[in-house]
Amino acid sequence: MKVTVLTGGVGGAKFVHGLMMCGVELTAIVNTGDDFQHLGLSISPDIDTLLYTLAGKANAAQGWGRQGESWSFMAALQELGGPGWFNLGDMDLALHVMRSARLAARESLSTITADFARRWGIAAAILPMSDEPVATWVDTVDGPLAFQRYFVEQQCKPVAEAIRFEGASEARAAPGVLEAIMQADVVFIAPSNPYLSVDPVLAVAEIHSALQATRAPVVAISPIVGGTAVKGPTAKLMGELGIAVTNDSIARHYAGLIDGLVHDESDAPPADLPAYATATLMQNDADRLRVAQAALEFAATLKR
Amino acid sequence: MKVTVLTGGVGGAKFVHGLMMCGVELTAIVNTGDDFQHLGLSISPDIDTLLYTLAGKANAAQGWGRQGESWSFMAALQELGGPGWFNLGDMDLALHVMRSARLAARESLSTITADFARRWGIAAAILPMSDEPVATWVDTVDGPLAFQRYFVEQQCKPVAEAIRFEGASEARAAPGVLEAIMQADVVFIAPSNPYLSVDPVLAVAEIHSALQATRAPVVAISPIVGGTAVKGPTAKLMGELGIAVTNDSIARHYAGLIDGLVHDESDAPPADLPAYATATLMQNDADRLRVAQAALEFAATLKR
Repeated sequence: MKVTVLTGGVGGAKFVHGLMMCGVELTAIVNTGDDFQHLGLSISPDIDTLLYTLAGKANAAQGWGRQGESWSFMAALQELGGPGWFNLGDMDLALHVMRSARLAARESLSTITADFARRWGIAAAILPMSDEPVATWVDTVDGPLAFQRYFVEQQCKPVAEAIRFEGASEARAAPGVLEAIMQADVVFIAPSNPYLSVDPVLAVAEIHSALQATRAPVVAISPIVGGTAVKGPTAKLMGELGIAVTNDSIARHYAGLIDGLVHDESDAPPADLPAYATATLMQNDADRLRVAQAALEFAATLKR
Repeated sequence: MKVTVLTGGVGGAKFVHGLMMCGVELTAIVNTGDDFQHLGLSISPDIDTLLYTLAGKANAAQGWGRQGESWSFMAALQELGGPGWFNLGDMDLALHVMRSARLAARESLSTITADFARRWGIAAAILPMSDEPVATWVDTVDGPLAFQRYFVEQQCKPVAEAIRFEGASEARAAPGVLEAIMQADVVFIAPSNPYLSVDPVLAVAEIHSALQATRAPVVAISPIVGGTAVKGPTAKLMGELGIAVTNDSIARHYAGLIDGLVHDESDAPPADLPAYATATLMQNDADRLRVAQAALEFAATLKR
């Protein structure tokens, strides 16, 4: 069975890992709106999180970065007056330095990402949404902030007024992305932040059209658990954007694209969409597998 | 007293450290012919060695790199198929990443180097010989090799036929370099490899002319100890280039530029140049101080 999943950061990566454990033929299409240049390095946080998670190298306790990471580089960098707001672990740096060097040699992000995944023995195909630059900007009451400045440096504190995806409308889908959506048996939208992590993927026009055109059922997993978000700024952001933190809002947000919603059993289902309630909190590998299995079973009941 | 020293790698850095301990007003003009791009990073090995040595951060046992260095980056890099021939320590990387980012932002190598030295509380002025690129090439029987490929990857094994300094003839001296030579009370040429480490500095025409024009006595410290070189490829290279490993050869090499030679007491002095014999091997800080003091005392006896 061919399964394709659109995903962003940590929550999404856990769900993708769950799908991988189900043994399906899996393609993950990853948000690159968070990608940025820092100290001359090309950093792709969501791709890296997924690589680490699927390779069993993620730091589960910390929620980001690599297990067993060391921080000698950051200490030395700050001695030299370098910026401290974005943490770069010694091992993590290898990914950024290698990617930057290969991008500079005109390799594409998708080729490089596929090679990293292969070297780490990852059974899923990991595709950036696009090989062309897309940059997520958050317009806040304090002015516009590039995504990492908003998310990491400012810790999502400035009140958001709007979110923009610079370059998205002109960006083409990366090689394999459209095929993965069109030829899938099921397409999932992972429980990532819909506004910050999934919307940049959907803002690539070709991807949006493919989701409308595919014959596969498209199922989103709601990021809401118990009337709030598990992690990150989803709930705060929904409040600031005047959106109720409900599955109805999530369903409406993906209206015209999805055929069903998997949501947490502690929350009300959306009003006008097939839905499936289960415990969606993923605290360990067993949870990931269970949620993925439930999502697959639910999707099998849906038709386009 | 104003002292200016032309220097290259490890041996030179030890002598410069000795001069710094003498409390003189010190300017070091550093070889940048070894500088190269690796994985998109701008690496300046001789500047870094001097920074580490003068800041008390050098790994004395290893002879290169930083004390207490860790190697997580290299391990992770090789997992990803990255090159292993040039070692980049986790702390060392901070220097390369910061320098590369600041060079990309159009700061000059001399500005960046001065800032690093200031942050580490180094009392000497450290000047790259030029802010413009100069690249040392070794023409070997196996073909031309960029310096680091010859020195690190091939460990100086290929037989050298000639040495070239690409870009040197057009390169201008970095800001402060010519003043430091013209206004010095003494100028030293450190006991670095004359052919690989000092010649690129002398190949910058403005520097060569300043050494001829200065009123200060110019004194070289011979890299030969006991009929061979302490470290590195000096003696092997001299053999391949058909030069006897003697202080006469060193004196002839610097003929027209130097007014005297400090050499090891185990070797014969040059025939036609004022010379001063002492134990020049520098195995600890006391040795460095002693050699520097001897060189200063000898220089004080010389006139132009």
